[in-house]
Amino acid sequence: MSMNSFGHLFRVTTWGESHGPALGATVDGCPPGVPIDAAMIQHWLDRRKPGQNKFTTQRREPDQVKILSGVFEGQTTGTPVQLMIENTDQRSKDYGDIKDKFRPGHADITYWQKYGIRDYRGGGRSSARETAARVAAGGLAREAIRQIAPNVQITGYMTQIGPHRIDRDNFDWAQIERNPFWTPDAQAAQDWAAYLDDLRKSGNSVGAVVEVVARGVPAGLGAPVYGKLDTDLAAAMMSINAVKGVEIGEGMAAAELTGEANADEIFMGPDGPQYSSNHAGGILGGISTGQDIVVRFAVKPTSSILTTRRTITKSGEETEIITKGRHDPCVGIRAVPVGEAMMACVILDHLLLHRGQIGENRGRIG
Amino acid sequence: MSMNSFGHLFRVTTWGESHGPALGATVDGCPPGVPIDAAMIQHWLDRRKPGQNKFTTQRREPDQVKILSGVFEGQTTGTPVQLMIENTDQRSKDYGDIKDKFRPGHADITYWQKYGIRDYRGGGRSSARETAARVAAGGLAREAIRQIAPNVQITGYMTQIGPHRIDRDNFDWAQIERNPFWTPDAQAAQDWAAYLDDLRKSGNSVGAVVEVVARGVPAGLGAPVYGKLDTDLAAAMMSINAVKGVEIGEGMAAAELTGEANADEIFMGPDGPQYSSNHAGGILGGISTGQDIVVRFAVKPTSSILTTRRTITKSGEETEIITKGRHDPCVGIRAVPVGEAMMACVILDHLLLHRGQIGENRGRIG
Amino acid sequence: MSMNSFGHLFRVTTWGESHGPALGATVDGCPPGVPIDAAMIQHWLDRRKPGQNKFTTQRREPDQVKILSGVFEGQTTGTPVQLMIENTDQRSKDYGDIKDKFRPGHADITYWQKYGIRDYRGGGRSSARETAARVAAGGLAREAIRQIAPNVQITGYMTQIGPHRIDRDNFDWAQIERNPFWTPDAQAAQDWAAYLDDLRKSGNSVGAVVEVVARGVPAGLGAPVYGKLDTDLAAAMMSINAVKGVEIGEGMAAAELTGEANADEIFMGPDGPQYSSNHAGGILGGISTGQDIVVRFAVKPTSSILTTRRTITKSGEETEIITKGRHDPCVGIRAVPVGEAMMACVILDHLLLHRGQIGENRGRIG
Amino acid sequence: MSMNSFGHLFRVTTWGESHGPALGATVDGCPPGVPIDAAMIQHWLDRRKPGQNKFTTQRREPDQVKILSGVFEGQTTGTPVQLMIENTDQRSKDYGDIKDKFRPGHADITYWQKYGIRDYRGGGRSSARETAARVAAGGLAREAIRQIAPNVQITGYMTQIGPHRIDRDNFDWAQIERNPFWTPDAQAAQDWAAYLDDLRKSGNSVGAVVEVVARGVPAGLGAPVYGKLDTDLAAAMMSINAVKGVEIGEGMAAAELTGEANADEIFMGPDGPQYSSNHAGGILGGISTGQDIVVRFAVKPTSSILTTRRTITKSGEETEIITKGRHDPCVGIRAVPVGEAMMACVILDHLLLHRGQIGENRGRIG
Repeated sequence: MSMNSFGHLFRVTTWGESHGPALGATVDGCPPGVPIDAAMIQHWLDRRKPGQNKFTTQRREPDQVKILSGVFEGQTTGTPVQLMIENTDQRSKDYGDIKDKFRPGHADITYWQKYGIRDYRGGGRSSARETAARVAAGGLAREAIRQIAPNVQITGYMTQIGPHRIDRDNFDWAQIERNPFWTPDAQAAQDWAAYLDDLRKSGNSVGAVVEVVARGVPAGLGAPVYGKLDTDLAAAMMSINAVKGVEIGEGMAAAELTGEANADEIFMGPDGPQYSSNHAGGILGGISTGQDIVVRFAVKPTSSILTTRRTITKSGEETEIITKGRHDPCVGIRAVPVGEAMMACVILDHLLLHRGQIGENRGRIG
Repeated sequence: MSMNSFGHLFRVTTWGESHGPALGATVDGCPPGVPIDAAMIQHWLDRRKPGQNKFTTQRREPDQVKILSGVFEGQTTGTPVQLMIENTDQRSKDYGDIKDKFRPGHADITYWQKYGIRDYRGGGRSSARETAARVAAGGLAREAIRQIAPNVQITGYMTQIGPHRIDRDNFDWAQIERNPFWTPDAQAAQDWAAYLDDLRKSGNSVGAVVEVVARGVPAGLGAPVYGKLDTDLAAAMMSINAVKGVEIGEGMAAAELTGEANADEIFMGPDGPQYSSNHAGGILGGISTGQDIVVRFAVKPTSSILTTRRTITKSGEETEIITKGRHDPCVGIRAVPVGEAMMACVILDHLLLHRGQIGENRGRIG
Repeated sequence: MSMNSFGHLFRVTTWGESHGPALGATVDGCPPGVPIDAAMIQHWLDRRKPGQNKFTTQRREPDQVKILSGVFEGQTTGTPVQLMIENTDQRSKDYGDIKDKFRPGHADITYWQKYGIRDYRGGGRSSARETAARVAAGGLAREAIRQIAPNVQITGYMTQIGPHRIDRDNFDWAQIERNPFWTPDAQAAQDWAAYLDDLRKSGNSVGAVVEVVARGVPAGLGAPVYGKLDTDLAAAMMSINAVKGVEIGEGMAAAELTGEANADEIFMGPDGPQYSSNHAGGILGGISTGQDIVVRFAVKPTSSILTTRRTITKSGEETEIITKGRHDPCVGIRAVPVGEAMMACVILDHLLLHRGQIGENRGRIG
Repeated sequence: MSMNSFGHLFRVTTWGESHGPALGATVDGCPPGVPIDAAMIQHWLDRRKPGQNKFTTQRREPDQVKILSGVFEGQTTGTPVQLMIENTDQRSKDYGDIKDKFRPGHADITYWQKYGIRDYRGGGRSSARETAARVAAGGLAREAIRQIAPNVQITGYMTQIGPHRIDRDNFDWAQIERNPFWTPDAQAAQDWAAYLDDLRKSGNSVGAVVEVVARGVPAGLGAPVYGKLDTDLAAAMMSINAVKGVEIGEGMAAAELTGEANADEIFMGPDGPQYSSNHAGGILGGISTGQDIVVRFAVKPTSSILTTRRTITKSGEETEIITKGRHDPCVGIRAVPVGEAMMACVILDHLLLHRGQIGENRGRIG
C-alpha cells in the first residue's frame, strides 16, 4: 500500500525530492523481453526537460536517466527496473525566505501540517520535478505496449491556455510537434506565444487544459467497478501536480446534454463495432470500447508569481511573500508529456490486467 | 488487488448484480468500538432509495440492509463488516430484447467484449444499483468518522441539471433536505421540477452536476504523491456510474485563472491558519488544508431513453433499440447520496492512514 | 490493503464470526466463463464439515453455501463471487465463563488487548469456523484452475498425529479418501484411530502435520522476490488457525543436509526437464519447476481441553478455566481440506499473475 | 501489487541484480522525524558484508549505502527513502559455463522458464546479494521502531548448522556478538568452526537454522486473519533466499504436543499478563501477546559446490556442471542479519497498522 506507487500489475513507485541527490522511478511488473535502453527513455525526458524555451522554467537540468536494474543485454528481464535521474543544478542559494514562510498555493503549509518537517528546498517532494520520474516510467511503458498492442498511439496536446481555447476546426495532428505548446492548432500557438510573453514579463502565470488521446486501444480494457479504466485515468491525472479537474470524453459538459444527444449509436464496421460519435471518450462502464480514449485535465496557474501575496510563517506570524526564481508562466505546458506518460502507464497496466484475468479477448461480435 | 475494492486502511469491496439474489459491501479495516446498527445504515440507504418521487426510477426496492458480521452488541469489533441488501423486486420479465442487443451508452457491449459473458438483466454488475452498497458502507464510515473527527460534516447537493445551474447567491444549506433534488437553491428546485417533468414525459433524460463538501476536516490528510486526497477523491467519484468529470475546488475553471487571481492568501486566525479564498478546494499538494474539501462531478444523462437508437446485436447485425422500463430522467439526482458516501469513505480512510504513518498531527503553526 | 484478504489477482476476502448470522468469502478476480454452481462448492465444504465422525467436533452445521453474485446461467461472469454460509446451530447457551475469562492458547486475550471488544461466542472471528469460507473459495479456485491448467491435481493428507508419523513406504494415494484422517498410510489410520480415541476420552488433544501436494503445476509460476510461490504458500498456510510451522520440500530438515545431498540433479525427459529428486519441493528461487509442489504444515493441539488450566479474567484476577463443549481432539484433521483450498487459491492466483505479466510461458528448453 | 515489495504501511520495494550497476530499497511509509543517516544504516550492512571471515563468501563488496531521498537535515521527512548500494566488485570474468547451463538448486532454470531471459551473472536477481537491500531497509525500520516502541529489541542467532544444534542450556545472549556464527552457545561456535572448515575445504556446503527473537513487543500487534503477525513473518522469512521452512514458537514440534503440554497458562504480573511458558512464540490468533516473538527458519545448503552435478543446457542437452568461484559453505550464517531485518520491518509495519486502525492500545486488563 505504498502511497508513492500507482498501477496494479505494472507498478511505478517514484521517489526523490527537487533538491536531493537524485530522483527516480522503481518500476515493477514490466513484462520481460522489452527492448529498452537509456536513450529510448531519454527521448521522452528530453520533451519534458525544463529550459527549452522561454515559456518554461529556466532551471537547467540535463535530466540524464540511468537504468540501474532490470535490463540485461538491451532487454527487460521481468525484474524491477530502476530509473534514476541525478539532480545536478542544485543551485546553492539562500532559502531563508521560504524556509519559514508558506508560499500560497504551494504545498508548503500542508506538508508542514502533516509531517512536522519539510524539505523546503524547491518544494521538496511536492515539486513538479517529481514528474520527471513519471515520464521516464512512461517511456518504458510505451515500449512494453509496443510489444503487446502495437497499434496503440498516445498523444497529448494543449487545448486551452487561460481563457484561450483551440479551434477544433483547426485540429491538425501534425502541428503538435511543431510548436512549444504541443497544440494541434497552429493559429492558437501563435496567439498563445504573444499572450504568454506578456504574462511572463508581468511575473504572472495562467492555467491550462491538456488533452491526452490514446488511439488503437483494444476494446475490453478496464476492471469494474473500482479499477475502471476511467477511474484509474482520473486518479493518474489528478495525481499530477497542480491538476484540479479531470474529464473523460464529454466531461463536465455531459451535464448539459440530453440522453438523446449523448447517445453514441453503434454500427457494424469491417473490423468490428463503430460508433456515430464519441461522447463517452472511449469508455463505457469503465471498459474501453475500442474508440479513442480521450482524457482532459486542467492545470492551475503556477503559484510562484512575482506579485506580493500575504501569508504566515511557521510560528504563525502574518507576513508577505514574493516568489522569485526560475518558474514557468504556464506549468501546464510541461504537463503534456507527463499526461502522456500517465496514460501509457495506465494503458499498459490494464493490458496486463486483462491478460491476467481473462487471457485473450473473449467476447467476439459477429 | 481487488478490482471491486477501494480504500487503503478502510477498505470497501462491493459485490452483487442488479437482479441477483443480493448485493452488498464487505468492509474491512473499520475501527473497533464504533456504535452501529442496521437502522443507522438504513437511514442513509433510504435517502438513495428509488421510487421516492416521480424524478427517480419507479423500481421499488425496500433496500433493507442486514449486518451479517463484524458487529457485536451494537459496536464494531474491528473485523470485517458484511452489509447485505437482498434484491426483492426482480420483476420477472422478458429480457429478450436487451439479451442480444447492446444498449447505446450502457456497458452492455464492453462487458461482452471483455468477459464474453454478461448478466444482461438490468445491466448486471454495471447497474447503478451497485451504488446502494456504497451508500451502506458510507453510512458506516460516517459513524466511524464521528468517533475520530467529530467536527466533520459531509453534505452533497446538486448544482446543475442540464443547462440550468444554481444561483450561488441563493445558496442555503437548510434547503438541501427540503426538495427532491437536494439543491441548496430553492428557486432552482422549482424550476428544475418543471423542466424535468417535461423531459420525463418526452422519454428523454439529462445530465447533472453534484457537489460534495466536507467541512471540519483537519489539516494534514492525504498521502502524496499517488495517495493524495484529491487523487483518491477523483478515483472515488469517477468510479460512480455515469460520471464523466471530476473537479476539486476551482476545477476545470482553474485553467482560466491567473496565478494572482488563483492564490488563496493565508492569514492567522484564532484556531490556526485561515485563507482569503478556497480556489484550491481545501487541498494543497494532495493534503487537506483544514478548509472545506470541495469536490464536484458531472453525471451524464441516463442512457435509457424512449427514443429509438441504432445499435448492433451480439452477432453483429445492425438494428434498433428503444429502452422501456423503469428509469430515471436524471440519474444524477440519486448520485448525491452516493457522492456523499464516497467522500465519507475516503475521509475516514485518510484519517486512519494519517494516524498510522504519523500518529497524531505533528506540524503545529504558531 | 484488506487484512482479511489474500491473493493478488484472484483475491479472497473472508468475513464472519463463529456465532454471527453468517460467514462467507467475497471472491474477486475469478476468470469469467468458469462453470460453477452451489453443489460443486458444497462438495468441498462437505469434506470439511464438522460432526462427521467421532474425531471431529460434534457441532452440527449443515454448512450450506449460497452463491449470491458473480455467477450467471451456471458460469462465472468475471465479477465478484459472494459465497455465503449461514450459521444455523448457534446453540443458545450461557457464555458467562468465557465471556470474562481468557482461554489459554486461544486468541481471547489478544483480541481483547488489540480491539478492546471481542465477540466471545465461540471465539468470534478467531474461530476455525472461518476456514469454511476458505474451503468454499478453494472450491471455486479448483474449477477455475481446471479451465487454465487442467493437469493440476491438489491433494492434502495427514502425515503425523502427535508423535506418530506415517511410514512413507506405505504411501498409497488411493487410501487418502478411505479413512477419517485423509492419510495415505492405511496402517497409520488404524493406529491413529485407537490413539485418538483414548485421547478424546481423556479430554486431551494433540497436534498434527498436514502435507499438501500440487501435481501437474506448470513450470514458471511465482513472482520473485516477495511474491514467490513459496512465500505466498507459507503465508497462506500460516494464516490457518493453529498452524505453527510451514515447510516447503525438505523443510526444516534442509538444515541437516549437505549441498551434495540436497542437489536435485537435472535431466532431459521427453516432455522437458526432469529431476533426480525433489528436495526443493518443486520451487527454485520462488518459481515452480514443474515438479510436485510439496507444502507441509504443523497444527498445534486444540487448545480447548477438559483439564483445568490457570488463567486470568478481563479485570486481571487470576482464576482457572476448563473448556467444555464441542471440540476436536485433533483440529489438524479438519485442516486437510483447508490446506488444499489455500493451495488451490495460491496456484490459481499465480497462474493468473504469470499470464498477466508474461503472457504465455516464454522460456523454452530444447 | 508490486511483486518486489513487502509490508503494508511500511512498504519496502527492493530492486537490483548481483552484477548490475547497483541495487537498493525504495522504502515508503516511514514515519517522519526519525533521526537517520547513512552511517546508521551502514552499521547493519557491515554485519552482513561478505568476506569478513573464512566461513562466508570471499567476494569483497564495500556495500556502501547512499541515501538518495526522504531524509532532510538528518531526519526522515515521511516521503520515500531511497537506499542505494553500488556494486563495485563486478569481477569481469567468463560466464560461459553458467550462461547456458542451469546450476542445480539455483533459480537459473526457473527464471529461464518463467521469463525467457535471465541475467546469468551471479544469479542476477535471484542472488542472495538482494538481501543487502533488506538489511538496509531493516536498519531504517529499527530506528523508526525506536521512536514508537523503544523497548523492542530484535536479535537473530544461529541454533543449528548441519546436524549440530546448540545446547539451550548454554544459551548466553552476550555470546552472540562474539563469534562468526552469531550463536549464543560458545561451545557450539567452537565445534562449528572445525566442522565448517572441513566442509569448506572439501568444497561442500551445509544448511542451518536461524532464530530471530523480538523482545519488548507490545501486545495487540497483528491483523487477523490474513495479515496476522505470524503470517507476515512467515512470508517475510520464506522470501529470503534458500529458506525452506519457517516456525513460530514451538513450530513443527507443536504437532507432537498434547493440548495439556502446549497450554501457556496465564497469570497476572505487575505490568500485565504473564505466561507460564511460550509455546505460542508470542502470538495467539495472529496477534502479539507481549511475550517474546520467536521465529525460526531453515536455510538449505549453498547450492554452489565443488562436486560435479548433472544438469542440462538451455538447448536441452544433458551435461555436467561444477560451480567454482566465491561461495559460502553455509549461506545460513549471513542470513542472520537478514532475518533480523525482516523482523524489524514486519514489527514496524504492524506498529503502524495498529495505530492506524485502532489508534492507541485499547484493551486494558485489570
